[in-house]
Amino acid sequence: MLDENSAREWRQRLQALWSQRIPLAQAMQVEIRRLDRAGLLLAAPLAPNRNHVGTAFGGSLQGLATLAGWAVTLVAAAGHGAPRVVIRECRMRFLAPVEGELIATAAWPEAETVAAFRNRLATEGRARLMVAVDIGTSGESAAARFSGEFVARVEPPAAG
Amino acid sequence: MLDENSAREWRQRLQALWSQRIPLAQAMQVEIRRLDRAGLLLAAPLAPNRNHVGTAFGGSLQGLATLAGWAVTLVAAAGHGAPRVVIRECRMRFLAPVEGELIATAAWPEAETVAAFRNRLATEGRARLMVAVDIGTSGESAAARFSGEFVARVEPPAAG
Repeated sequence: MLDENSAREWRQRLQALWSQRIPLAQAMQVEIRRLDRAGLLLAAPLAPNRNHVGTAFGGSLQGLATLAGWAVTLVAAAGHGAPRVVIRECRMRFLAPVEGELIATAAWPEAETVAAFRNRLATEGRARLMVAVDIGTSGESAAARFSGEFVARVEPPAAG
Repeated sequence: MLDENSAREWRQRLQALWSQRIPLAQAMQVEIRRLDRAGLLLAAPLAPNRNHVGTAFGGSLQGLATLAGWAVTLVAAAGHGAPRVVIRECRMRFLAPVEGELIATAAWPEAETVAAFRNRLATEGRARLMVAVDIGTSGESAAARFSGEFVARVEPPAAG
């Protein structure tokens, strides 16, 4: 979905947006550790995201997954004006406590899914995307699974 | 589910726990505004919970709803040792942007639901509770709806 240059630009743009304009992402110390042709990987240290028993707070895991899903949708919508992306619905299953750094990984959707999404956005000014995000800690299997429906909107093309 | 004295105690205990031991709840400035016989109401100001377009960040809404559902389950489990409560699964639907203070409301479950939950916790050392949380802003209808499955655990009774 991305070449190397645009991956670098997206990474800088999203990191700046979250660090400067979303106070909770700043409080969580969210870092985009990887954003490339395959997808993205977000990380956040445990300390600011711990709960009272020292594992990751469920709300932090949901916040991290939401940022990842939102980013995937925004990147997928690129090229169509200035899309606005909102979360519509999500579901999350918690399988095991996260006892170290919080990691969220998401792959870009399949090429035909992205093509259909972009086509719909161009013709109708609005399109939805389902994004799956895996949550875990370094080197371990998934501790939580998130699935979110995100909606992108742009100004519809002028009629006639 | 609660008399006036124990409601006051729970409110103090939960507020202290979140403010002192969960950094993200502190960053969100979560306040227990009401905790009484009917249920609980959590509030958080918009400023620390805003996104880049000035409405509430979805991750903040999920965090607030998670704290509310967790509190309902912990209070429902009271009287059985020192229960540990974790979130197992949740679902959230976002209906409209939250453009002011974040409010989460949850009612205590029906008496028979609580009785069955406590009975299971006492006999099996583990019980689950579904909790619904409404999210909105002061004086407006629900902007989001959260449904979570929480699991309480205590040490099982000694065999024999």
